[in-house]
Amino acid sequence: MAKGFQTLKGFRDFYPDECDARNYVFNVWRTVAKRYGFVEYEGPILEPTELYKKKSGDEIVTQLFCFEDKGGRDVSMRPELTPTLARMAAARQRDFKKPLRWFSIGQFFRYEKHQKGRGREFYQFNCDILGEENVGADAELAALSIDIMRELGFTSDDFRLRISDREAWTTFAAKAGVSEEQTGEFLQIIDKMERTKPEDFEKALGQFGLTPADIDGFISSGPEASNTLKSITADLTARGLGEFLEVDLRIVRGLAYYTGAVFEIFDIGKGMRAVAGGGRYDQLLKVIGGVDMPACGFAMGDMVITDLVRESEKPNELLEAGIAESQSIDVFVIIADEEKRAEASKVIQDLRNAGQRTAFSMAPAKVGKQFQNAEQMGAKFAAIIGAEFPEVSLKNLGDRSEITCQADELTGKLEKNR
Amino acid sequence: MAKGFQTLKGFRDFYPDECDARNYVFNVWRTVAKRYGFVEYEGPILEPTELYKKKSGDEIVTQLFCFEDKGGRDVSMRPELTPTLARMAAARQRDFKKPLRWFSIGQFFRYEKHQKGRGREFYQFNCDILGEENVGADAELAALSIDIMRELGFTSDDFRLRISDREAWTTFAAKAGVSEEQTGEFLQIIDKMERTKPEDFEKALGQFGLTPADIDGFISSGPEASNTLKSITADLTARGLGEFLEVDLRIVRGLAYYTGAVFEIFDIGKGMRAVAGGGRYDQLLKVIGGVDMPACGFAMGDMVITDLVRESEKPNELLEAGIAESQSIDVFVIIADEEKRAEASKVIQDLRNAGQRTAFSMAPAKVGKQFQNAEQMGAKFAAIIGAEFPEVSLKNLGDRSEITCQADELTGKLEKNR
Repeated sequence: MAKGFQTLKGFRDFYPDECDARNYVFNVWRTVAKRYGFVEYEGPILEPTELYKKKSGDEIVTQLFCFEDKGGRDVSMRPELTPTLARMAAARQRDFKKPLRWFSIGQFFRYEKHQKGRGREFYQFNCDILGEENVGADAELAALSIDIMRELGFTSDDFRLRISDREAWTTFAAKAGVSEEQTGEFLQIIDKMERTKPEDFEKALGQFGLTPADIDGFISSGPEASNTLKSITADLTARGLGEFLEVDLRIVRGLAYYTGAVFEIFDIGKGMRAVAGGGRYDQLLKVIGGVDMPACGFAMGDMVITDLVRESEKPNELLEAGIAESQSIDVFVIIADEEKRAEASKVIQDLRNAGQRTAFSMAPAKVGKQFQNAEQMGAKFAAIIGAEFPEVSLKNLGDRSEITCQADELTGKLEKNR
Repeated sequence: MAKGFQTLKGFRDFYPDECDARNYVFNVWRTVAKRYGFVEYEGPILEPTELYKKKSGDEIVTQLFCFEDKGGRDVSMRPELTPTLARMAAARQRDFKKPLRWFSIGQFFRYEKHQKGRGREFYQFNCDILGEENVGADAELAALSIDIMRELGFTSDDFRLRISDREAWTTFAAKAGVSEEQTGEFLQIIDKMERTKPEDFEKALGQFGLTPADIDGFISSGPEASNTLKSITADLTARGLGEFLEVDLRIVRGLAYYTGAVFEIFDIGKGMRAVAGGGRYDQLLKVIGGVDMPACGFAMGDMVITDLVRESEKPNELLEAGIAESQSIDVFVIIADEEKRAEASKVIQDLRNAGQRTAFSMAPAKVGKQFQNAEQMGAKFAAIIGAEFPEVSLKNLGDRSEITCQADELTGKLEKNR
């Protein structure tokens, strides 16, 4: 006996409840993306390790599930989608009309410490607009991310889209005399400032001849800090989504490749967590694919958002209803007389041919047991086939009402009762 | 400039057309499985290598994407789902009412020679009934696999479900004096007989004191060879699916763990390929999870079936229609007067709030260009917002008819025209 096989640390089993919760979130992502005119794509889960080094530098390797394959290639289970997207878009850029509105739902892998809301494997929704330099594309993505939250049942009491502008920071740094080579380091300091002791922050700024007061002054300028932020604010306000927006220049986002607006969906009700994030990255397609194409995008992982849904009353109700519907069936056929099993088989096939989700007991069983089974499977109706066949009973398992009809009328009756 | 990043050999990029084709097949799998009352689950893509060795022996490792992770664990990208299913079902067997009707759609990996219909990565539909020893479960799975083919648009001119019984073979072997230890080897010879030269086949049988005529005699006994086959034949015939069934005792299926009925969906119209396969494996849950639970199941990969759909007229028409519908939008909002962009933004948001798949030009563009864009995106309607706002024009891009209405009437008009 070989007991003891266990799921690897940081990896998840999706039993039916968890799988349907996952699918519910996937469906919201997909539905809202399509409502915005986006089309779906997907890349390989395994890529050359070099693709990630190129984007993020050699140190990324410490966080990768990377290995040498049997053909001697350095390969990695993908930690993110953007390099793959850049490769794919660059490779066939002439085949698609710009702008591209592309989204993807897939799984990603990072070898890091396993903790709540952070596994070694996770799903991620990626949503990007390629080939549109106009700030309208940034606003479109911001609106899409807000609508995903709304579709999940969240309101303006629950979250904000916090937006900033990397270019405004670069301009500020340049004016303050920070050299181009040092801008990256400067932005790292800003990115970490909320987690830095005041005296350390002051000291770090000192090397650039800046003070915390200078930074505070810039941050308090709000939307006036850049035309990008003014424009996105006006756009989202025109859409009626202004209440979800908060210009917050403290947002910098760690990744080096952002070049314009950057934003996060931020949970203001519960644990103050970032649920999604993204921004404009106009240079990356050139670096990865050798093609000049402006781009912006964002990503939302499945773990934090699912936790947040679970902790929030209305969103969790919607999720539970979705799971219950997914796991229910329309009708359970009860075979009250084994002599009629062949006839029942035909009825079952007819119901399924008509699209009714139908189950039955595959082995002979007592009628009471079959009713129990029907309830356990969340059946809406039970159709009872017995000695009176082709006359059958149809019982509504919700209100317990019952009618009799001919077997060939069942499908019609069920459709009327949907 | 960093050109030259390529997809790894045997791995696929799914551009929107390919991704929607994939999703179309996934949807058929999922829809039919739910119609049979199955619920969905999923396991991890990475598992301990030991899990596969336990089921298939050490030689499996040569076909695995396996490596040592940063924590020194021997891990493998999964080549199949059954060991995971056995682990999961065994671990929580008390939490679920038997029989379990479980299906899964996921990605798998095998390091093998890359050829048509066989990549190093593929998707697979897995469908299993656990905890039901009655042959009715085998028939249920056979019917489900037939209905997937029918849902894809295939008819009895295109495919057969070829079914056999491993137990009937074991009984035959025992009667013929083949020892229990040699039965595995004997079945391997039968499994390969269609690819073996007659003289080699004769020689191989000789060691068991058998002749090709003995084998032919057994094979020609058909459904009479076992009660299992008689029962499944009667069941599928009662369902009205008899025309798809062919008892064919030549089917043995290589895997060692089958214990009863085994079957394949077989393409009879085109390349004579096996599209799906499975059978009963009553011992495996004990081997993997230490739990006594009868089980049967089958799997269908995405590559062969998608090729077959592509090569078949009606199924390919259905697929193309599915892709076109997935990539179309309901309405493209044309901003004929830039001064009305803010008003247009509000209209767009209202349309999307009502569930209309809506797009527009994110940057100012000539009206002709916007119409072009609408056509390229497969828009069914164009809503034109200009100086006359709130009066707007709604143009049906199919029949070119046009009406004018108030902006707040748009959603209603579009819903009526769906």
